[in-house]
Amino acid sequence: MTTNRTNIPFSRDILEQTLKRRFFFAPSFEIYGGVAGLYDFGPPGCAFQNNVIDAWRKHFILEEDMLEVEATMLTPHDVLKTSGHVDRFSDWMCKDLKTGEIFRADHLVEEVLESRLKGDKLARGVEVTEEEDEDKKKRKKKVKEIKNIKLDDEVVKEYENILAQIDGYSGPQLGELILQYNITNPATGGKLEPPIEFNLMFDTAIGPSGNLKGFLRPETAQGQFLNFNKLLDFNNEKMPFASASIGKSFRNEIAPRAGLLRVREFLMAEIEHYVDPEDKVHPKFDEVKDIKLKFLPKNVQESGSTELIEESIGKAVESGMVDNQTLGYFIARIYLFLMKIGVDANRLRFRQHMSNEMAHYASDCWDAELQTSYGWIECVGCADRSAYDLSVHSARTGEKLVARKTLSEPRVVENFEIEIAKKKFGPKFRKDAGTVEKWLTSRTQCELEDLGKELAEKSKIVVQVPGVEGDIELDGDLIKIDKVKRTEHVREFVPNVIEPSFGIGRILYSIFEHQFWCRPDDADRGVLSLPPIVAPTKVLLVPLSNNADLQPIVKKVSQALKKEKIPFKVDDSSASIGKRYARNDELGTPFGITIDFDSLKDDSVTLRERDSTKQVRGSIAEIVEAIKDITYNDGTWEEDTAKLKPFEGQSA
Amino acid sequence: MTTNRTNIPFSRDILEQTLKRRFFFAPSFEIYGGVAGLYDFGPPGCAFQNNVIDAWRKHFILEEDMLEVEATMLTPHDVLKTSGHVDRFSDWMCKDLKTGEIFRADHLVEEVLESRLKGDKLARGVEVTEEEDEDKKKRKKKVKEIKNIKLDDEVVKEYENILAQIDGYSGPQLGELILQYNITNPATGGKLEPPIEFNLMFDTAIGPSGNLKGFLRPETAQGQFLNFNKLLDFNNEKMPFASASIGKSFRNEIAPRAGLLRVREFLMAEIEHYVDPEDKVHPKFDEVKDIKLKFLPKNVQESGSTELIEESIGKAVESGMVDNQTLGYFIARIYLFLMKIGVDANRLRFRQHMSNEMAHYASDCWDAELQTSYGWIECVGCADRSAYDLSVHSARTGEKLVARKTLSEPRVVENFEIEIAKKKFGPKFRKDAGTVEKWLTSRTQCELEDLGKELAEKSKIVVQVPGVEGDIELDGDLIKIDKVKRTEHVREFVPNVIEPSFGIGRILYSIFEHQFWCRPDDADRGVLSLPPIVAPTKVLLVPLSNNADLQPIVKKVSQALKKEKIPFKVDDSSASIGKRYARNDELGTPFGITIDFDSLKDDSVTLRERDSTKQVRGSIAEIVEAIKDITYNDGTWEEDTAKLKPFEGQSA
Repeated sequence: MTTNRTNIPFSRDILEQTLKRRFFFAPSFEIYGGVAGLYDFGPPGCAFQNNVIDAWRKHFILEEDMLEVEATMLTPHDVLKTSGHVDRFSDWMCKDLKTGEIFRADHLVEEVLESRLKGDKLARGVEVTEEEDEDKKKRKKKVKEIKNIKLDDEVVKEYENILAQIDGYSGPQLGELILQYNITNPATGGKLEPPIEFNLMFDTAIGPSGNLKGFLRPETAQGQFLNFNKLLDFNNEKMPFASASIGKSFRNEIAPRAGLLRVREFLMAEIEHYVDPEDKVHPKFDEVKDIKLKFLPKNVQESGSTELIEESIGKAVESGMVDNQTLGYFIARIYLFLMKIGVDANRLRFRQHMSNEMAHYASDCWDAELQTSYGWIECVGCADRSAYDLSVHSARTGEKLVARKTLSEPRVVENFEIEIAKKKFGPKFRKDAGTVEKWLTSRTQCELEDLGKELAEKSKIVVQVPGVEGDIELDGDLIKIDKVKRTEHVREFVPNVIEPSFGIGRILYSIFEHQFWCRPDDADRGVLSLPPIVAPTKVLLVPLSNNADLQPIVKKVSQALKKEKIPFKVDDSSASIGKRYARNDELGTPFGITIDFDSLKDDSVTLRERDSTKQVRGSIAEIVEAIKDITYNDGTWEEDTAKLKPFEGQSA
Repeated sequence: MTTNRTNIPFSRDILEQTLKRRFFFAPSFEIYGGVAGLYDFGPPGCAFQNNVIDAWRKHFILEEDMLEVEATMLTPHDVLKTSGHVDRFSDWMCKDLKTGEIFRADHLVEEVLESRLKGDKLARGVEVTEEEDEDKKKRKKKVKEIKNIKLDDEVVKEYENILAQIDGYSGPQLGELILQYNITNPATGGKLEPPIEFNLMFDTAIGPSGNLKGFLRPETAQGQFLNFNKLLDFNNEKMPFASASIGKSFRNEIAPRAGLLRVREFLMAEIEHYVDPEDKVHPKFDEVKDIKLKFLPKNVQESGSTELIEESIGKAVESGMVDNQTLGYFIARIYLFLMKIGVDANRLRFRQHMSNEMAHYASDCWDAELQTSYGWIECVGCADRSAYDLSVHSARTGEKLVARKTLSEPRVVENFEIEIAKKKFGPKFRKDAGTVEKWLTSRTQCELEDLGKELAEKSKIVVQVPGVEGDIELDGDLIKIDKVKRTEHVREFVPNVIEPSFGIGRILYSIFEHQFWCRPDDADRGVLSLPPIVAPTKVLLVPLSNNADLQPIVKKVSQALKKEKIPFKVDDSSASIGKRYARNDELGTPFGITIDFDSLKDDSVTLRERDSTKQVRGSIAEIVEAIKDITYNDGTWEEDTAKLKPFEGQSA
């Protein structure tokens, strides 16, 4: 664990400088002044991200036989209207009447009250912890200055109470808080307009007429849902199954100010697992049931605590804390994946959504949160979305999105059914006939029962159909509604969706924080301890000097690494060995191979391990085999180098 | 080659049905009615694309040590203004005054004149070839009906002449043609408005104020250019080097109607190779110089011919037909890549841009064109863009984008230099001081010479500086301009850019056409002969029956394939062996492993090759080794199965 690695405390400043200097990532369009919330990845950032994606694809898609889909980012308005994003994917913002500056309302209230509480502490002579101070400095907060003003004890309590619930306020409520506590533009003291809703989707027009309104997708999920029938068909109608997508999504953040954690364009990896709502048992649950995880369930949070419960996922499902096996299986698989790519288990928790955060249709939802210097960050969501998504798209398009299961025994069911006299519909409703018919056939059982009762009592029903003007009158000549008994051999159902959804950029950034440290007593020697499987480059090849005699060995080792498809770099610059290794420690390169003049005699080379700086000596074949086994086959340094000679001949 | 595979002629209809049925791709948002020019990839399409991208990354980025960059798709207006896209990335469209229907002007003129020529042929009793007919049927042309009307011989010649140059007309010229030849809305005969320019970028607003105008990038190149300094630094200042990006770009096509070949959102892979303009020799050119390619140079096209010249890339560079070695090296590497992933060499040509198609700054440009049923399609561009891109961004931002080379011998250079009295600038120009200074220091040698002359003659100069109101007067107290002799040890230069740019979707579609065929005498048995390295799945595992006894062997083979990381699928459905293989022939799966009751005795299994349907028998280890060697190490069926027993026991 990081705590044992060094005596130098973690500094976000040093990490950020290192990541920038080594071009893991950088603000986009920097020479044009940059655009908030947009970042480019440089070569090591790209390679790290590619390796994480590759690991994700193997861990989820290949291992679980998921069906990968790539849908477009451009998405027409109607699809996102149905999904609810047009109406609900928004944040509240307020504007300074004078300067035109725009604030995200909840963040502003939070920052201002926090700064007043800090000012109060200062006025009372209470020490502000270093963490709080660091926080102020690095988040580029709007509030630049803390004023030493003592607050009434009562006010302190009020502020603390508001801050504890800050994620739960509606826009109008935030507006009231702003008035009540006289919250203004922190820079100018200027008055703010009441909060208004700002939809976070980027919009654009598709095609030359400008009539087809579209958005950049806010998530990859909708493109998967819309292909449900094709995917089920591709899967030979077998259930359950999962689709998966890896791709960019977009979110027009109001004022992004937390590096890779809050960006306007980001890579997601999402799974939609379709399952029978009556059978959420998972066939492979036994394989994961003993894995112990740290949970923060909703009842603990609702009682005002953040104490974690550590128990096995098997017990968590058994007790009902986690809703079902399939959801539990994915939570465990998420954990295993995060461990593989370098997340620190001690800074990972699964937090359950509280009732008031969760969408009304969801039956359970857990976030994998990673602890960073910005606090606990939601990096993976894992929700049981019930039948919501497929149902709404089906209702809107009239396309059935269902699966079928052959019943072990036929069963008799009684359902209300509607019979439509199609021949009379055309002449009566003309162009609206289709719309009226579709509306009637998509009524629920409950609605049909009511309509049937009305029809029986009044000999007619009068309804309004969206898209058709005026009242629609229907009598017994046009429709019949009856309860019908049928023997079913097949059960038809709308699958429920379990959705693990990964924010890749947030995970990458958290891993940077979890794996970055400095060599003891030397803040200038940073090390990024990325696991070999995701490290940008696996090996640095270092000839001791640029003496031409060493070149044939460099070539020989290069060929051996190429043959095994192990990514490596040669550094034959004139910098000292130590400098060359130090550069690669920052780049996260896990292995170094040194070629010296002894190599000329017997083809032996030295292998260096990044974290321990341990070195061993062996033949080219032995060294390459050890690297391959540790990197790709879960081998360990101890086992794979046990037979090799320790090397003490040169400084790390 | 495809011609020998079958006696059934290629049919785009059958191919498209197959690709749709197997969900390689499908129109996006189909249950919402679809959106023209947007397509989703299903599981085999995703896997094929992922494998092509993986091959691309290995062939270019890893093999050539390129620096991968991932820039954002969202791009602010200023960047694309500088690059020229805001002003010039457009097509001409014209509108039907009555119906509001919009046409792309050049395509409409082309279609209407072509249809009139066909009508003329019919009227003259000349047979319309099947190809022309197929073309009409499948391109979903606007002109639905060919009228038998004979044209004057002279008019025929005029039409043919216009069609030969159709890519060269400006908007106003297209407008004249529309008037002169009475071209109207083909469906209604309605009159058309004169062509207007339509910018093909999707626009959006970044941030909540709506003030920061942005676009979805039309190419990945700009994001690479803007990171030039960071990349050069990452490369330890060494030249030449290349950056590379793989990602989506966008183009708001006016009326896309050619499947994957003309889409609004597409995957690109682009390389920007930065090279010294005085030294375009490529160190690895010798490795490719003997590769023979088919060229269509500009002089041949300008003489009205399309006859290909077949010669080695070495000769093509030597003769000056291809401008320089670095450009030639990339053309050869493009060829090798396309061969690797399944392009038919007989349907690939390199066409040079004619002087009037090429951007004014480019020094040479070649397109790799692939022949499909839609004609020859530009799939890869390879241009020498000179110093244009870095120069314009540098001029706009004032940021130097240059490389440096230590001179073998110091040289004396004489340059005009400007000396600025900074202390006096502040008080005089106040907030504009920086702008004026930046403007002065970014003058060219020529401009400095003129300014110097003026200053000497009139003791002052008067200039206008963009962004500063009014005239600026500068005298000898404020600036000095002199010719200065200096000894240079380092040469500073703006690198030239050689840009190979791949349209991945177009390449994928062309490969579908190149590699799809039907078994002789059976149009229902399609085969997609994708090379194993890019095939979606490498192996289909087929137990002869679903008898439980065979399960342990299925597991054993599965484990052996997993260990070697070879993607495979098990099909233990009750369909006949023949049906299961036929399905996988359409999916492009190159190998099949059949497990039968003999397998129980000695662990032997049968290996089937997709294209030849040849079968051999061997141990699990032998079979897996053969698959691995053919798929990943360029092995051949003949060599890798030479020692195995031919198997004739069951039908293909």
